Amino acid sequence: MSGNSIGKLFSVTTFGESHGLALGAIIDGCPPGLELSEADLQLDLDRRKPGTSRYTTQRREDDVVKILSGVFEGKTTGTSIGLLIENTDQRSKDYGKIKDRFRPMHADYTYQQKYGSRDYRGGGRSSARETAMRVAAGAIAKKYLASNCGIEVRGYLSQLGPIAIDSVDWSVVETNPFFCPDADKIPQMEEYMQKLRKAGDSVGAKLTVVASGMPVGLGEPVFDRLDADIAHALMGINAVKGVEIGAGFDCVDALGSEHRDELTPQGFTSNNAGGILGGISSGQDLVAHLALKPTSSILVPGRSVDVDGNAVEVITTGRHDPCVGIRAVPIAEAMVAIMLMDHFLRNRGQNGGVQSGTPVIPAFAS
Amino acid sequence: MSGNSIGKLFSVTTFGESHGLALGAIIDGCPPGLELSEADLQLDLDRRKPGTSRYTTQRREDDVVKILSGVFEGKTTGTSIGLLIENTDQRSKDYGKIKDRFRPMHADYTYQQKYGSRDYRGGGRSSARETAMRVAAGAIAKKYLASNCGIEVRGYLSQLGPIAIDSVDWSVVETNPFFCPDADKIPQMEEYMQKLRKAGDSVGAKLTVVASGMPVGLGEPVFDRLDADIAHALMGINAVKGVEIGAGFDCVDALGSEHRDELTPQGFTSNNAGGILGGISSGQDLVAHLALKPTSSILVPGRSVDVDGNAVEVITTGRHDPCVGIRAVPIAEAMVAIMLMDHFLRNRGQNGGVQSGTPVIPAFAS
Amino acid sequence: MSGNSIGKLFSVTTFGESHGLALGAIIDGCPPGLELSEADLQLDLDRRKPGTSRYTTQRREDDVVKILSGVFEGKTTGTSIGLLIENTDQRSKDYGKIKDRFRPMHADYTYQQKYGSRDYRGGGRSSARETAMRVAAGAIAKKYLASNCGIEVRGYLSQLGPIAIDSVDWSVVETNPFFCPDADKIPQMEEYMQKLRKAGDSVGAKLTVVASGMPVGLGEPVFDRLDADIAHALMGINAVKGVEIGAGFDCVDALGSEHRDELTPQGFTSNNAGGILGGISSGQDLVAHLALKPTSSILVPGRSVDVDGNAVEVITTGRHDPCVGIRAVPIAEAMVAIMLMDHFLRNRGQNGGVQSGTPVIPAFAS
Amino acid sequence: MSGNSIGKLFSVTTFGESHGLALGAIIDGCPPGLELSEADLQLDLDRRKPGTSRYTTQRREDDVVKILSGVFEGKTTGTSIGLLIENTDQRSKDYGKIKDRFRPMHADYTYQQKYGSRDYRGGGRSSARETAMRVAAGAIAKKYLASNCGIEVRGYLSQLGPIAIDSVDWSVVETNPFFCPDADKIPQMEEYMQKLRKAGDSVGAKLTVVASGMPVGLGEPVFDRLDADIAHALMGINAVKGVEIGAGFDCVDALGSEHRDELTPQGFTSNNAGGILGGISSGQDLVAHLALKPTSSILVPGRSVDVDGNAVEVITTGRHDPCVGIRAVPIAEAMVAIMLMDHFLRNRGQNGGVQSGTPVIPAFAS
Repeated sequence: MSGNSIGKLFSVTTFGESHGLALGAIIDGCPPGLELSEADLQLDLDRRKPGTSRYTTQRREDDVVKILSGVFEGKTTGTSIGLLIENTDQRSKDYGKIKDRFRPMHADYTYQQKYGSRDYRGGGRSSARETAMRVAAGAIAKKYLASNCGIEVRGYLSQLGPIAIDSVDWSVVETNPFFCPDADKIPQMEEYMQKLRKAGDSVGAKLTVVASGMPVGLGEPVFDRLDADIAHALMGINAVKGVEIGAGFDCVDALGSEHRDELTPQGFTSNNAGGILGGISSGQDLVAHLALKPTSSILVPGRSVDVDGNAVEVITTGRHDPCVGIRAVPIAEAMVAIMLMDHFLRNRGQNGGVQSGTPVIPAFAS
Repeated sequence: MSGNSIGKLFSVTTFGESHGLALGAIIDGCPPGLELSEADLQLDLDRRKPGTSRYTTQRREDDVVKILSGVFEGKTTGTSIGLLIENTDQRSKDYGKIKDRFRPMHADYTYQQKYGSRDYRGGGRSSARETAMRVAAGAIAKKYLASNCGIEVRGYLSQLGPIAIDSVDWSVVETNPFFCPDADKIPQMEEYMQKLRKAGDSVGAKLTVVASGMPVGLGEPVFDRLDADIAHALMGINAVKGVEIGAGFDCVDALGSEHRDELTPQGFTSNNAGGILGGISSGQDLVAHLALKPTSSILVPGRSVDVDGNAVEVITTGRHDPCVGIRAVPIAEAMVAIMLMDHFLRNRGQNGGVQSGTPVIPAFAS
Repeated sequence: MSGNSIGKLFSVTTFGESHGLALGAIIDGCPPGLELSEADLQLDLDRRKPGTSRYTTQRREDDVVKILSGVFEGKTTGTSIGLLIENTDQRSKDYGKIKDRFRPMHADYTYQQKYGSRDYRGGGRSSARETAMRVAAGAIAKKYLASNCGIEVRGYLSQLGPIAIDSVDWSVVETNPFFCPDADKIPQMEEYMQKLRKAGDSVGAKLTVVASGMPVGLGEPVFDRLDADIAHALMGINAVKGVEIGAGFDCVDALGSEHRDELTPQGFTSNNAGGILGGISSGQDLVAHLALKPTSSILVPGRSVDVDGNAVEVITTGRHDPCVGIRAVPIAEAMVAIMLMDHFLRNRGQNGGVQSGTPVIPAFAS
Repeated sequence: MSGNSIGKLFSVTTFGESHGLALGAIIDGCPPGLELSEADLQLDLDRRKPGTSRYTTQRREDDVVKILSGVFEGKTTGTSIGLLIENTDQRSKDYGKIKDRFRPMHADYTYQQKYGSRDYRGGGRSSARETAMRVAAGAIAKKYLASNCGIEVRGYLSQLGPIAIDSVDWSVVETNPFFCPDADKIPQMEEYMQKLRKAGDSVGAKLTVVASGMPVGLGEPVFDRLDADIAHALMGINAVKGVEIGAGFDCVDALGSEHRDELTPQGFTSNNAGGILGGISSGQDLVAHLALKPTSSILVPGRSVDVDGNAVEVITTGRHDPCVGIRAVPIAEAMVAIMLMDHFLRNRGQNGGVQSGTPVIPAFAS
């Protein structure tokens, strides 16, 4: 039954439905002494916020977060941090028509079967709106990792439908509504999204998250590997259907002699491993990719059944993102940051390279 | 630090190094009354066992498992089940030469850095040998799921290096050393593997696991989703670099109108979702794919460093699989079975469709 | 670091400081379909509420709880339940004088040392005010246990300082401000408390919690025993220094032949075990006792040190309970209910006596 | 279902029945670099071992423990440690007569009801024999705490039936078969036990565990308090019915002005708190007491029922301890050590006093 928590030492628990009174979270395990204000969280919440460009849903959600506990005189105290976002723009009447029928490819059907009933307003708990709290929690992790561990967690859109990027320029990512790191591809993406919106259809996306400044030694054999925990965190984001670490599925038809990352005194010669060997961080950049399916709420009519099992036609007329993948960039960053924070705390003070040890590869020691 | 357990209510904890005295596991949470003998576990252990064909390592590991507790008069008692496999064929001297150097793409480096030292014999805890215990634990889950829940968990090799299968015939899978379900591809695979072995090289693979007979309702929002937990379990297998549910990364350039699985009174019209919607099982077959990187222990010389950071050349002359993916089929099945068993127990007796409810889609009710 | 959660399947996580903006909790794992409103929680919150008699602190805390999620159309949905109590009566200036010094027998010193700083206003997170959220969460558990499992959880004051009760009349418990079940002792208690208040001193108390209507079979060998989990839950209440199950410490000088509860077809002949054998509920009433130390915040001057280690004198002039044990009755009930709920969910659908089995002792079957 | 694990970062999982093939444990989370051999564990196992004096059961259990993994070249590697004790002296025929009936005050009845069947040989999993593995695991924790944290965990018998000790001389504890710290009481105890054995009866006991050299800051608010976790660990020992921290139940009729431990630059003036304030260690000695009920297996005939609910008489003729409390001293030490180890790891590297901070009380800094 319970399943709304993630993280063992840096633990995030959330509540809230799309059209309920509020969303909230408890972040348990943040070390004391971190300077933290609501503005720190708002930054990433605004990156995720809908309604900021014509390529995302036009719902207005101000997503103003309040810190209710765990911070005193501007610093974390070490006790649990309570967060709250009150829901303001709830057009519940938009959703009445799907009360008794199941939107194809949506969680409506499984929630109804699992629980015997469901909060049908805006998807209730299954709505991507729930991820606002992940972003807020992730912002705390990101700040701690950056200020105390020298780890930076960033993400970008690596493919929008058929349009894959060719290059990564981090300075481009935040200058466009797609989180696209390849300036040359932005016009194509704009054009594609306009056509898609006109067609009332949706499309999938691929995202990439990179953590740089990684220490060596995060991750626990054999089940709590860092890659396993990151796969768990990323696959747990709404609409995600695939997760890769480093070369990912490209390793299937690769030869061992070509695929391997060789070690030299100057560092690794490549990073097909995505920064993880044997489930443990190697000190290279952590690289993860994820695939998000097309939005299931579209204007194109689809076949479905109602709660009595009768055939019906469904058109979803609410305000939805034609590509949920775009706004998922800050969510994916947040989930990676939460996992890194958790593993950092699990290894704090550990013998070896995690904190104080000198990496064997001389290039890492500088 | 701790990280050798998986599962919340059906919990598997393992120990053991490649060249230690023994491997062992404790399976905690198996319900009472299940008929269980060592033969039930040996079946899958033998499927994973090396040395059974010329396409896998020639190490002989008999992997004879003993049940030390939790079974009385042929049935489980509900108490924890202790399993043991004593190590017999340990050629430790084969490994002396890698004591002070790190095999590229192997966990040697990260273990050394994390712990300050490592059991270098055969990879120690990072050896795939550890997975024998997962297979044994998974066999218990598979038996319970089959006999008490009507769920069957099976796997196959879906791609070996460049050779992808075209069709799935379950009756073919166990008739060849590759777990290949496409009889037409077996000769190609044989030829490819012989060339690979001669070259002293290795290659990646893609596997698929399918669970049929699924109930509706397994999986917990929002973090303990069934897909998230399966991603965690599969990414935690040695050498795995990618996990997909259903259509996986193919959803990236798919349109919502084409990708969605429509619902009809006769059932779903397709299964791009891979049997999971909103993190909860839909009653369709659960389908997961995983990518395994090429074996890192190969005869082709590679650059590396030693424990003092000096450049060295490494050749791994031990007896290793040219494609670790092949023998990973029973491991992947085991991990999926363990996760399904865990979620089954979490939902036992739950209101709604999980156990006793009538699925809304009439086709599911039969 | 993290430690603000309790329960494995019925999980309660709380946040909030005495003088922060709000207290909150997330209850994760409540099954769907339970009728639940704020009035259900308010009942127990009002029993715990200070300021209701002259024997408790005169602080006014209205403790009005809001349900923010997890309930739809009057019933629980199975998703996480968010609760909030906004703090209203915060006289922070009362506490300024203890900012730099440690109240003897209070958590001031340990918080300061553990975290390097502390929210000194009213004890911050270490304040008993935090337990309001436990009471609210416990009220949900109590309602579910009563309506779905036939289990009733009730408590009373079994000793106030030197005044021990002689008899238990449940109908008396809620008629007096002490939760005393022995009408004859109430005048003594009134007199004692008035003297105590005049002296500016405080006193300890002993409480008893009883769960009736217990099924056979709750509790898991060997570490997650029901008694172990109840001990954990009760010892985790502020000021508790001892926990007993059944005869408790009286068993130390008892003979086995006298102490044992014999079994007959009419049931057990006694209940020294307190309803638990081998860590598993026997179907008899569950009986737990707990000892609470005297309030540490008193008017009698005491020696202490300040944050620089200098000797100081401390007088606590805030509004405090002269006997914290009294108001702890609903808290203790709540903690027992939370643990029973957790174990109920862990055993739902289990083979044997937990839910559907017929108890061997005929008297239990009726 | 699952419940055979304890500890979050230092995690102990056990298996094994009284008359099964073996007992075993997996210790997960022991830091690397600890010198460890089987002799380290055997010491405490021998202290718990039956048959060493005429005051304990005459069963011979050699309890020879083997370390199967996690130790390489004499030091822990950081990976999971597998332990095994093979059962040798199994007189299963002794127990046949209780196959179909329930010994009063024993777990027979609750196991049968919970699981629908039970391993009746020697109590199966509910036998105190299971605690051998706790002792072995605790020995690892004790060694780490002693060598790396300066914490010493020791225990003694504080009351045997009616005979309470008057003084504690640690040098006496290991010189007598009772773990009695008061040399004057030993003759009385000897006489008492001989009478008890002749009468075929049993008696309860009270034990005390003390941890000295404690750091300030172990324990997590609000549910994972150190005292709560220790209560959980101690109440989870077979036959324990009560747990106290510091003054325990004596606090009930104590005045706040007398009970409180005042702070001075020279340290605390008393230790009624038992070394824990607000759930967090204060740096004083941690003091815990526990009550163990009389052995339920006695020669005095008792009333019971059989598996069909018929009235029967039960006499337990096996070889049993007349006072299980005596041999529980090393078990209680082990459980406290496991919990301290777990909390130590949770706080490793923490800001404040836990590891590196200077305690405010000058006396603690030396």
